[in-house]
Amino acid sequence: MREPEFVALAGGTGAAKFLRGLCHVVPPEDLIVIVNTGDDWVVWGLYVSPDLDTVTYALAGLIDETKGWGVKDDTFRCLAAMASLGEETWFNLGDKDLATHLFRTEQLRKGWTLSRVTESLRQKLSVRSRIFPMSDDHVATRILTPDGWLAFQEFFVRDKGLANVLEVTYDGARDARPAPDVVEAISRARAVIVCPSNPVSSIGPILALPGIRETLATTPARVVAVSPIVGGAPLSGPAGTMMRARGLPVSPVGVALAYQGWLDVLVFDRQDAALAPEVEALRIRTVTTETLMRDRHAEIALARDVVEMLS
Amino acid sequence: MREPEFVALAGGTGAAKFLRGLCHVVPPEDLIVIVNTGDDWVVWGLYVSPDLDTVTYALAGLIDETKGWGVKDDTFRCLAAMASLGEETWFNLGDKDLATHLFRTEQLRKGWTLSRVTESLRQKLSVRSRIFPMSDDHVATRILTPDGWLAFQEFFVRDKGLANVLEVTYDGARDARPAPDVVEAISRARAVIVCPSNPVSSIGPILALPGIRETLATTPARVVAVSPIVGGAPLSGPAGTMMRARGLPVSPVGVALAYQGWLDVLVFDRQDAALAPEVEALRIRTVTTETLMRDRHAEIALARDVVEMLS
Repeated sequence: MREPEFVALAGGTGAAKFLRGLCHVVPPEDLIVIVNTGDDWVVWGLYVSPDLDTVTYALAGLIDETKGWGVKDDTFRCLAAMASLGEETWFNLGDKDLATHLFRTEQLRKGWTLSRVTESLRQKLSVRSRIFPMSDDHVATRILTPDGWLAFQEFFVRDKGLANVLEVTYDGARDARPAPDVVEAISRARAVIVCPSNPVSSIGPILALPGIRETLATTPARVVAVSPIVGGAPLSGPAGTMMRARGLPVSPVGVALAYQGWLDVLVFDRQDAALAPEVEALRIRTVTTETLMRDRHAEIALARDVVEMLS
Repeated sequence: MREPEFVALAGGTGAAKFLRGLCHVVPPEDLIVIVNTGDDWVVWGLYVSPDLDTVTYALAGLIDETKGWGVKDDTFRCLAAMASLGEETWFNLGDKDLATHLFRTEQLRKGWTLSRVTESLRQKLSVRSRIFPMSDDHVATRILTPDGWLAFQEFFVRDKGLANVLEVTYDGARDARPAPDVVEAISRARAVIVCPSNPVSSIGPILALPGIRETLATTPARVVAVSPIVGGAPLSGPAGTMMRARGLPVSPVGVALAYQGWLDVLVFDRQDAALAPEVEALRIRTVTTETLMRDRHAEIALARDVVEMLS
């Protein structure tokens, strides 16, 4: 494996924006992205990997920037036809997007690993950074709500993330192995960046894999995380309710608590600067800056701040 | 099983037009269509059954009438995305059309038979006639060309049916069973109509199933075929080269030779009327009429001629 300069741990939308910025600041070839697959979901028999797709599409310049997921300028004619056949259509798959899932599903059925499919897709889509699924084994993030256990996509997409979260588990994580080169990448990197993703449902499944926390704690790499929480609310998605379910404050302090033991630096927003002492009490250095990624310039500026802090 | 008045044996495009006409002449509920599945083909891991789809779409009023296959007003955005992933795209699957194949593939994988999927699809698409695949077992029509053996779709779609045909086989037919109710439908029908389809590659696979020829020979039903050959050429598709490969003249006489032993009546075009004595020499009654289905009126007129002849 080529020595990676930067290894990023990533979920979906927030991570994708940050990584797009990062690829403007460092050579994309110097970056390996390790992506959560606990959200993976089978739709109409197709294997969909939402976080892998979001990261890949973003780095390929194909993402629908308004929605933050899916392929830009996509149509939903197959979805409409599925609706007319009475099939479930709450998981929105666009017509162009379908090609990715058809390709992935076919190759997996042929016996390819998810790693191999992911590598093939990123090459076909001319993404210069390497992208690794966190594992080739099946891990399923499940959410306990007052109405019972839900798969992550049922909770997040079908039910719009509105239910109260009582508990989050990562089924299969204990018996899953990190994908090839994941542990080695973290060990050999110059820096590991935890993207501004949901610490419970996006980064949590990666951390739940055997050996990952230990490798993060022992790697000589500087390990820095960007807080997805700004001013007491997540940048996007259901991080708030999930952090509360874990007893974590919905603030950079909660992020620091989730990552303590292996995190060296937490980057968080200036508006939360008053929380720095609480984070530093956990033996985590703090850096405050502008973390809201309102546009491409802001994505790049945040990435630049993180990279400058590392050098 | 409700007693069928009419049972039709069908291939794709030509059959679909005739059957659409037939459903204007007789109550659609009185019709069972038994459809060739020797052309079935797996595209991107999806189980595609071109003749079942063509018949179902035609009777549902969904077919692209210009092309004679696929769904009207369809787009091909997934196909274009598959091309950009480097996948084979010579088999044209439209975005709406994909829903049918996704649905079928998923149900087959769940363990449904093709018969059950076909029945479900025709109900969902509000087709009033029953549609049976010829078999729930795998039968593959294969074509020997000077360059070797091809699957039917490779010969017909990928290579545009241009190769010289040396031999046609129906792999698996001998060990396949007719689908449930197929034999019974033929036995109990008032009339069996062989649609104007390729006698070798559309009707041939049905006839190759164990018991079908015997049932056609012994049914009390009147068995009538409509010739797909007019003036020495097929209405559509590669029937000419395939009939030549079997040593059959490309004329109503060739159709009669393919069906002799069980066919009671052959309906063919007036312009071939001079061939009637040759057909009748095979102990097959002849009826000549206008068989070119240039428009909806012609489809209905041909169906009316066939039904009137039966009464």
